[in-house]
Amino acid sequence: MKNEKGPVFAPTRREMLIGSGKLAAGAAVVGVGASAFINNANATSGPKPTPWGYVKLDPAKVAQSAYDNWYKHYCCYAVAEAIIAPLREKVGGPYQNLPVEAFIFGHGGTVGFGTLCGTLMGAGVATSFALGRKDGEAVLRDMMAYYSEADMPIFKPNNPKAQIKNTNISESPLCHISVGKWMKKEGVALKSAERKDRCARVAADIAYQTVVLMNKVADGTYEGETGSPSAEYGITAQENCTECHGDNVPEPLMPKA
Amino acid sequence: MKNEKGPVFAPTRREMLIGSGKLAAGAAVVGVGASAFINNANATSGPKPTPWGYVKLDPAKVAQSAYDNWYKHYCCYAVAEAIIAPLREKVGGPYQNLPVEAFIFGHGGTVGFGTLCGTLMGAGVATSFALGRKDGEAVLRDMMAYYSEADMPIFKPNNPKAQIKNTNISESPLCHISVGKWMKKEGVALKSAERKDRCARVAADIAYQTVVLMNKVADGTYEGETGSPSAEYGITAQENCTECHGDNVPEPLMPKA
Repeated sequence: MKNEKGPVFAPTRREMLIGSGKLAAGAAVVGVGASAFINNANATSGPKPTPWGYVKLDPAKVAQSAYDNWYKHYCCYAVAEAIIAPLREKVGGPYQNLPVEAFIFGHGGTVGFGTLCGTLMGAGVATSFALGRKDGEAVLRDMMAYYSEADMPIFKPNNPKAQIKNTNISESPLCHISVGKWMKKEGVALKSAERKDRCARVAADIAYQTVVLMNKVADGTYEGETGSPSAEYGITAQENCTECHGDNVPEPLMPKA
Repeated sequence: MKNEKGPVFAPTRREMLIGSGKLAAGAAVVGVGASAFINNANATSGPKPTPWGYVKLDPAKVAQSAYDNWYKHYCCYAVAEAIIAPLREKVGGPYQNLPVEAFIFGHGGTVGFGTLCGTLMGAGVATSFALGRKDGEAVLRDMMAYYSEADMPIFKPNNPKAQIKNTNISESPLCHISVGKWMKKEGVALKSAERKDRCARVAADIAYQTVVLMNKVADGTYEGETGSPSAEYGITAQENCTECHGDNVPEPLMPKA
C-alpha cells in the first residue's frame, strides 16, 4: 500500500493526530489515528469523528478520475469520489463505510436548481471528511474563491468526449451563473455534448486544485487565503454583488458596537 | 427499540427492499435489507450502498431537535442530524458509521458564501442516505420548492432564544436571498440574536416538512410534485428569473430536435 510519495504507515505505527490537522515529522498520513481502524458499527460511542485522514495524491490522476466520474454520476459525485476513492484504498478504515454515490444529489447545483456548483459540494465533502472542520473549511473557502476567479475549463482530457472552444470566468460559485455564461459564450444548449464535457472538465479542474491545496495541508505549508464573506459584507455572500443587484446594492445592518 | 408508529423489525425479519423505496405490507422500515447489519469495514465489495433505510419519525420532535442542533453547529448539521440521529438509533447499521458533523461545512450557504441554504443541503444528505437516489432526489426537489414558497419561520420553539416579529417568503433556495430579505424586513444584523433564531427556526421548518414527505414515502403514498427545472428552462435554475435578471431574462438555447 503506497501513495504517490511513499509508504502509508501501518495502522499500529500511525501517529495519533486526530483533530490536529498537522503532520508529525516524517508521517505520511494527516489526521488519522489508529482508532480509525477499529470497527465502530456496534460501538456506543458514535461514528468515527472527522478528520478521517489524508495522504498526498497526484492532482493530475485525480483530475482525470473526476472527468471520467462526471460521466457516471455528474459533478458532485465526480469530485468527491475522485478524491475519496484513493483514500478508501490508501487510508482505508472509515472510508470503507462511506458510499459517495449518496452525494450525487448535488448535481446541477443541487437536483438541477442551479445553486452551489456540485463540484464545490463534492470538494466540501472530500475536504471535510479528510481534513476535518477547520482545515476542510479553509480549503473549501479557497476553492469557492478559486472557482469564481479561474478561467475554466483548464483540464485537457486524454480522450475528450466533445470538443469545446471557450473558457470563462464565472465570478460566482453558482451553477446557474457559471454554466449560463459559458453556454452563452459557446452557443450551445444545456443538453449538448459540449456543455456536458465542459462540466466534466470543470469537475477535473476543481478536483485538481482541491488536491493541490490538500497536499499543502499534508505538507504543513498550507495557508488559507479566503476569509468568511459575512464579516466583510454583513451577510453571507459572494463578491459579485452588482451582477444581480446592479448599482443598487443593499447595505445590510452591521452588528451594534 | 420502537419508533413512533410501531416496532422496527429485527434484522433477520427485515424485508429485502434495497433500492425499491417501497414498503411491503406491514413492514416498518423502508429500503433496508439485512445486509445493512453486516460490517463491511473490511469488505472488498465497497461501502454499504444507499438507501440505508428509514422508519417514520415524529415531525414535531425532529423539528425541535433541528432547532436545538442549530445552536450546536448551524443549519446544515441541524437538519441532517435531526433526521439521522433517530435513524442511527432506530435503524442502526450503517448509520453508526456516518459522523454528521462532517456536513457542518454547509453553514451560511456553504462556508458563508450564501449559496444553497444549509438546511437544504442537510435535507439532501438525510434524504439521500435514507431513501436512496430516486426517492431522495424527488423529496429534495419538493423541499427546494417548499423552501422557496413557504412563509417561514413557522416553528415556535419551546424556549426561544430570541423573539422575532417577521416571517418571509424567500422565493429562492439561496441563503443570501432568503436571509437578506428577512434581515431587511426585521431590521436586524446578521450577527443579531434575532437572525440566528430565525435561521434555527427555519432549520426546524425544513426538518419538519422533510420528515412529513419522508413519512409519505414510508407509507407508500408519496407523489413528488416538483420536476427538474432544466427541462423547462433549458438551464439549471430556480423560478425567480426576474429577481436577478429584471425584464431581460436570457433565453438559453434549447436542444436541437
